[in-house]
Amino acid sequence: MTVKNPVSLVIVGSIGLDTVATPLERREEVLGGSVSFACAAASFFCKTGMVGVVGDDFPAAYAALYGHFGIDLSGLQRVPGKTFRWEGEYANDMNDRRTLRTELNVFAEFAPTLPASYRSSPFLFLANISPDLQTHVLGEMTAPKFVAADTMDLWINTARPALERVIRSVHMLTLNDSEARMLSGEHNLVKAAACVRAMGPTYLVIKKGEHGAMLFGPGGVFIVPAFPLESVLDPTGAGDTFAGGMMGALAALGRTDEAAMRLAMVYGSVVASFGVERFSLDRLAALTRGEIEARTAAFRKMITLEA
Amino acid sequence: MTVKNPVSLVIVGSIGLDTVATPLERREEVLGGSVSFACAAASFFCKTGMVGVVGDDFPAAYAALYGHFGIDLSGLQRVPGKTFRWEGEYANDMNDRRTLRTELNVFAEFAPTLPASYRSSPFLFLANISPDLQTHVLGEMTAPKFVAADTMDLWINTARPALERVIRSVHMLTLNDSEARMLSGEHNLVKAAACVRAMGPTYLVIKKGEHGAMLFGPGGVFIVPAFPLESVLDPTGAGDTFAGGMMGALAALGRTDEAAMRLAMVYGSVVASFGVERFSLDRLAALTRGEIEARTAAFRKMITLEA
Repeated sequence: MTVKNPVSLVIVGSIGLDTVATPLERREEVLGGSVSFACAAASFFCKTGMVGVVGDDFPAAYAALYGHFGIDLSGLQRVPGKTFRWEGEYANDMNDRRTLRTELNVFAEFAPTLPASYRSSPFLFLANISPDLQTHVLGEMTAPKFVAADTMDLWINTARPALERVIRSVHMLTLNDSEARMLSGEHNLVKAAACVRAMGPTYLVIKKGEHGAMLFGPGGVFIVPAFPLESVLDPTGAGDTFAGGMMGALAALGRTDEAAMRLAMVYGSVVASFGVERFSLDRLAALTRGEIEARTAAFRKMITLEA
Repeated sequence: MTVKNPVSLVIVGSIGLDTVATPLERREEVLGGSVSFACAAASFFCKTGMVGVVGDDFPAAYAALYGHFGIDLSGLQRVPGKTFRWEGEYANDMNDRRTLRTELNVFAEFAPTLPASYRSSPFLFLANISPDLQTHVLGEMTAPKFVAADTMDLWINTARPALERVIRSVHMLTLNDSEARMLSGEHNLVKAAACVRAMGPTYLVIKKGEHGAMLFGPGGVFIVPAFPLESVLDPTGAGDTFAGGMMGALAALGRTDEAAMRLAMVYGSVVASFGVERFSLDRLAALTRGEIEARTAAFRKMITLEA
């Protein structure tokens, strides 16, 4: 069987209607969820297929926005019931977030089935959803060349054996610093990284929000800062945007050698830096590849010794 | 008049006997103070002259340690009375420090007079002491080519007009992130940096501890991470060590162009990363220039896109 218009990156994760409060502003039921941010970010680099579920209340404008990014939606299920809801609130410095409400809704019964056009995709990103769903999606793929996974404190605390199966099966894991500490039981990030890599993945990315991100792998450690911004409106989804941008860049390069990994870290940081400039996907929706390349050039200048 | 053995960098600051408690260990009356750390760090790069004061209780072993580093001590006063004391305690993550006790002692009456051999030094670092003393020392210099200053929350809160005079008079100011926020009234570091640079200095370095450091200047922003360590025993003096290493590297290069500033930021980070591996000056006392160069090479590899 030949597959038409194959995607080069498949991403599975959550789709949510988010209510987000920052010290300055509150937005209700904006588009969110790990797969929304990750696919939007990846779409700037490669043909990306989405695997997710929404309810029959999912706004047509949000479906149209996915289309605007050119995301392949043949893996997006629309089922009777309500879309997943999340509500969160940021403290003054935008680093501390508190979850006020989570309603699984249609997500509780989600059983992803991959369209044929996704199964031979070389790149797969298991964005944050339950580890059992991540394992299921991985099992539906033919022979992915490079698989990355993300997770969250909830699964580390409540589904550790299932999560460890995922971690054993992927090439790269992304965690934020507090998750890396929680998963490893090590406060020191160098020790935490060694411990997590011993669980399976060749690469570990530790995301540190406004302090940047660290890549641990066979080529040693590579560290990028966050691109400094004068104004951050909404950090929601920054980690998903980072990982989606990174995976999209790798899929576009078609390589995962050390140089590709490092360049992809920069692209992930750059796309994430745009994402937080506005709420939800608002900034990414207005973003151009030219803006990404211009900020990537500025980013390179910002980390290079050669003035 | 000709000056014998002129120093290329003069540093003024505090000398203290520190009592330091970390979650793992407590050390009493170890050698500390801003000028101790800064001179020790700079001594790996250039001939450094110290300006400071100790009491008649200052241990001979500590004076010998200054000599071990090759620091010029003709600007070090020994006066009747007790040496400055400081006591502090670190919380679990080594980022939060609480000052338990400060005894000014001989520091209260300190009136630095610069030896002739210091006055024509091209580089001057006004490490953390009262802004009036910083201004006094600056006034004793003939025509320094590049002057940097550091300060602390105490002077921002209690001696702001005097501090602003210092800030107006220097080429570079170093602050940690919380001090930059306090001085500028801006939480966002990009805005804080613009505000502080508008007060006078061409360059501002914002030190972020384990998250690295940022250089703001006419060449844009340059960001270095901290060198990741498996174990940090005592962060006391890390900022002074960073700044001393940076100034020492600049003095050794004899240049302050953008490329020199960036390379000096890396050297400062590297020397500071050694300093925190043990208490007080213990690690710096055992450090070699070869170790510095080896870690600098590893540091460059850690921030470069070229694998």
